[in-house]
Amino acid sequence: MQTRNNTRPLITLLTDFGTDDPYVGIMKGVILEIAPEAAIVDLTHAVSPYSIREAAFLLATAIRYFPPFTVHLVVVDPGVGGNRRPIAVRTRRSFFVAPDNGVLSFALAQDPPTEIVELANPRYRLPLVSATFHGRDIFAPAAAYLARGEVPIQEFGPVLPALMPLPGCEPELREDGTLVGSVIHVDRFGNCITNIPAATIQSLGSEVQFVLGEKKIHGLAPTYSCVDPGQPLALIGSTGYVEIAVREGNAARSLGLGVDSPVLCRIPRAMQLGGQR
Amino acid sequence: MQTRNNTRPLITLLTDFGTDDPYVGIMKGVILEIAPEAAIVDLTHAVSPYSIREAAFLLATAIRYFPPFTVHLVVVDPGVGGNRRPIAVRTRRSFFVAPDNGVLSFALAQDPPTEIVELANPRYRLPLVSATFHGRDIFAPAAAYLARGEVPIQEFGPVLPALMPLPGCEPELREDGTLVGSVIHVDRFGNCITNIPAATIQSLGSEVQFVLGEKKIHGLAPTYSCVDPGQPLALIGSTGYVEIAVREGNAARSLGLGVDSPVLCRIPRAMQLGGQR
Amino acid sequence: MQTRNNTRPLITLLTDFGTDDPYVGIMKGVILEIAPEAAIVDLTHAVSPYSIREAAFLLATAIRYFPPFTVHLVVVDPGVGGNRRPIAVRTRRSFFVAPDNGVLSFALAQDPPTEIVELANPRYRLPLVSATFHGRDIFAPAAAYLARGEVPIQEFGPVLPALMPLPGCEPELREDGTLVGSVIHVDRFGNCITNIPAATIQSLGSEVQFVLGEKKIHGLAPTYSCVDPGQPLALIGSTGYVEIAVREGNAARSLGLGVDSPVLCRIPRAMQLGGQR
Repeated sequence: MQTRNNTRPLITLLTDFGTDDPYVGIMKGVILEIAPEAAIVDLTHAVSPYSIREAAFLLATAIRYFPPFTVHLVVVDPGVGGNRRPIAVRTRRSFFVAPDNGVLSFALAQDPPTEIVELANPRYRLPLVSATFHGRDIFAPAAAYLARGEVPIQEFGPVLPALMPLPGCEPELREDGTLVGSVIHVDRFGNCITNIPAATIQSLGSEVQFVLGEKKIHGLAPTYSCVDPGQPLALIGSTGYVEIAVREGNAARSLGLGVDSPVLCRIPRAMQLGGQR
Repeated sequence: MQTRNNTRPLITLLTDFGTDDPYVGIMKGVILEIAPEAAIVDLTHAVSPYSIREAAFLLATAIRYFPPFTVHLVVVDPGVGGNRRPIAVRTRRSFFVAPDNGVLSFALAQDPPTEIVELANPRYRLPLVSATFHGRDIFAPAAAYLARGEVPIQEFGPVLPALMPLPGCEPELREDGTLVGSVIHVDRFGNCITNIPAATIQSLGSEVQFVLGEKKIHGLAPTYSCVDPGQPLALIGSTGYVEIAVREGNAARSLGLGVDSPVLCRIPRAMQLGGQR
Repeated sequence: MQTRNNTRPLITLLTDFGTDDPYVGIMKGVILEIAPEAAIVDLTHAVSPYSIREAAFLLATAIRYFPPFTVHLVVVDPGVGGNRRPIAVRTRRSFFVAPDNGVLSFALAQDPPTEIVELANPRYRLPLVSATFHGRDIFAPAAAYLARGEVPIQEFGPVLPALMPLPGCEPELREDGTLVGSVIHVDRFGNCITNIPAATIQSLGSEVQFVLGEKKIHGLAPTYSCVDPGQPLALIGSTGYVEIAVREGNAARSLGLGVDSPVLCRIPRAMQLGGQR
C-alpha cells in the first residue's frame, strides 16, 4: 500500500440531487468546515433519481483517473432513513463513502476493498442527524475526515464482512454464441454506453456484428472519423466499454435506443462456418 | 464575535444566471484574481429568473452548514442598473454581499446583521462598472476582498441603518385555528417545501392534518420509509420546514402542487372538541 | 511579458460535454493528479454540441476577467480522433490548450499569440491515448503541466507557424451603409448577443436604428431600467457586444430571434440627409 503523501485532500461527489437545489453546495460547506484545504470535484449530480445501477456505472468509469487517496462520496440513496447501513470502504488506491446498497459494486470490482466499516461513530457525524439528508449529516463529514488522513478508518465504526450486492449487470452469453448486452447509460451526445467490456468483445474477434433491433453494425471502428458524418458505428469508448454512436449525430435518437435497450453481438453465420471448416 | 482563524477564504455563490453562459465562471475569475486561495462553492445558479423570494429561501436553508467567516454572495437582481443599492452585511457568523432587494431577509432572520454598508467605494470594484453585470463588476470584487479578511467592512462604503424588506412570506393563522402556508420551492425530486417552520407545526400537536386541495395527509412522518412507496407524507425536511413528499415518487406531480400552492394545517374537529372538553 | 508570480495555478474549462456525464469530473481528476493545488473554474459545459463558433465567442467574453497565467482549456472537438492537431498557445497574458479548429480565433484576436505548439510530446499525455476523449488524455494533462509553470511551452512539441481560421463571424457593412450583424448566442434570460462590437456601433452615432425583422429599436439604451418592463432595447452588454434584450422579459421569445438571426443597424434616412447637408 502506498504511503500517504502530503498533497491536498481530494473528494469527488456523485449524487442524484441535481444542481437546482443547494443540497450539493450544503454538503460542500460541511466538508470545507472539516477539511478547509480540500479540492472537491463533481462527477455528476444528474444520476436518474434513485438509479443505483446508473450511479454504480458512472462511478466505475471515473475512479481510475483520480490520484491515490481520493475519497469518492456517492449519495444515491432510495433507502435514506430506513435500515440500509452507511459505510466507508478502503481499497488499495482510494476510499469510498456511500450507502450500502450496491452502488459501489462496479468500482470495487476494479479496485477491491481492503476494509469495510459502518459509519456508526457519532463523533464523525453532524451533531443532529436528519431523517432525510444523510449526505449532509453522515456521508459528507465522514468523507471530509477520511480525506484529512488523520482518522484511521476503524475509528468510524464496526468492521463489516461484506457489502450488499447489485443485481446482475453483466452481458449474458447465449448457447448459440450470441452475447446479449444492454445500454446502461446514454450520454449528452446520444452515445449509448453498453455493459459490454472491451476485453469481452475483443475475444469475439474482428468480424463481430452488433444487432440493434432492425439495425446492424459490422465490426468495431477505431475512431469516430472512420465513418461518414451521420453514420452509426460501434467502438470501445473512453469508458472501456462498447459504445454505439453516430458520427456528429445522436445514436439514441437515430437508432431508437435508450437505457436497457438490448445490444446483441454475434459472429455472422458465414464467418462462423468458414471458421469451423 | 469569533476571532478570524487563518483558514482559507470561502465564498458561496447563489444566482439566477444558470450555468449555460460563462457569467458564473467570469465572477470566479474576478474573485480568484483578488483572493487566489479562496474556495468557491456554488449553492445554485438555477433560481427562477428574477425570483427574489425563491433565492431568499434557498440561501436561508444553506448558511448554517458553512463555517464562520464564509462570504455568501447572492446575485438575483432584477433592478440591476437602476437605483437599488449594492450592499455588504456582517453578522455574528458570516458575511453577505447582495443587492438590497430583500433577498437576504430569511438568512438574516436566522443570523441577524451587526453591520450593513453600501458598496460605494470604487477601490473595491472593477475599474469599469457595466450597466448590466454588477455581479462581476461590484459584487464579486467585494466578496473577494471581504473573504481575504484584510479590509474592514466600513471601508466599502457608508453604513446603512436598515435593509429593504421582502413582502410577507410567513404562514398565516386564521381565526378558526387553521394555519395557511404555501409551497415556496419544488425540488428535483418533486418534494414541495413549504414556508411552515418545524417549531410552528410542532406547536399544533401530533394530530395535525394537512389539506392540499382534495387530498389530506394525517400527521408528520418521521422518515420517508414510514410509508409505502408511492404514498404521500408530510415531514420536517432537512431545511427545517415542512415538506410534502411522496416516497420514491414526485409529490408535485402526484398531488398537483407547485410554487405558491396553499398548504392548510389544522386539527381535525373531533380532536379539537375532544381537547376542549 | 510579466514574470510569473507564485500564486496558485488556475485553469478554466469550456466544453460541449454537459454535466450529466462524469467527463468533466474525470478531466479534473487528471488535472489535480498533476497540479494538486490548481483552482479549476468551469466557464460552461453547455456549448451546443460541436458548435465551434459558439464556444469561440463564449471564450472571448470571459478571458479578460481572469488573472495573468491562467490556462484556458477548450474542448469542442468534432474532429477528435481525426487529423486536426491538438495545440497549446502562449499569449502575453494567458495560455490556451485546444484542438486546432478555429475555436481560439476570437480570444486570440484580443490577446494575440506569441507561441503556438503542437501537443505531440508523449511525456505530457496520459500513457494511453483513446480515440474518443482527447480532453482527458491529451488536453487536461497539457493544461495541468502548463499551469504548474515548470515546463516551457516548447517542451510540448514542435512550433506551428499559424492556426486554422474560423470562417468569418464579423458583421458586414453593405454599400448603403447598413451594418449587417447576427445573433451569435442566446443566454438564459433570452438576451440575444450579437457579433457587433461596441466600438463599431458607437462609430455609427447615437441615432442608430436596429432592425429585427418587422421590429425596430431606436438607439442604444444605457441600462435595462431605461425602458419599461416588457419593452425591448439594444445595449452594449457586459460582453462588449451589442445585445438585444427585453426588460424583465425574454427577447429571443418576444422578438422571434435565435442564433444566426440577422440584426441590421442603420441611420434612418431623414437623419442621414440631415447630416449630409
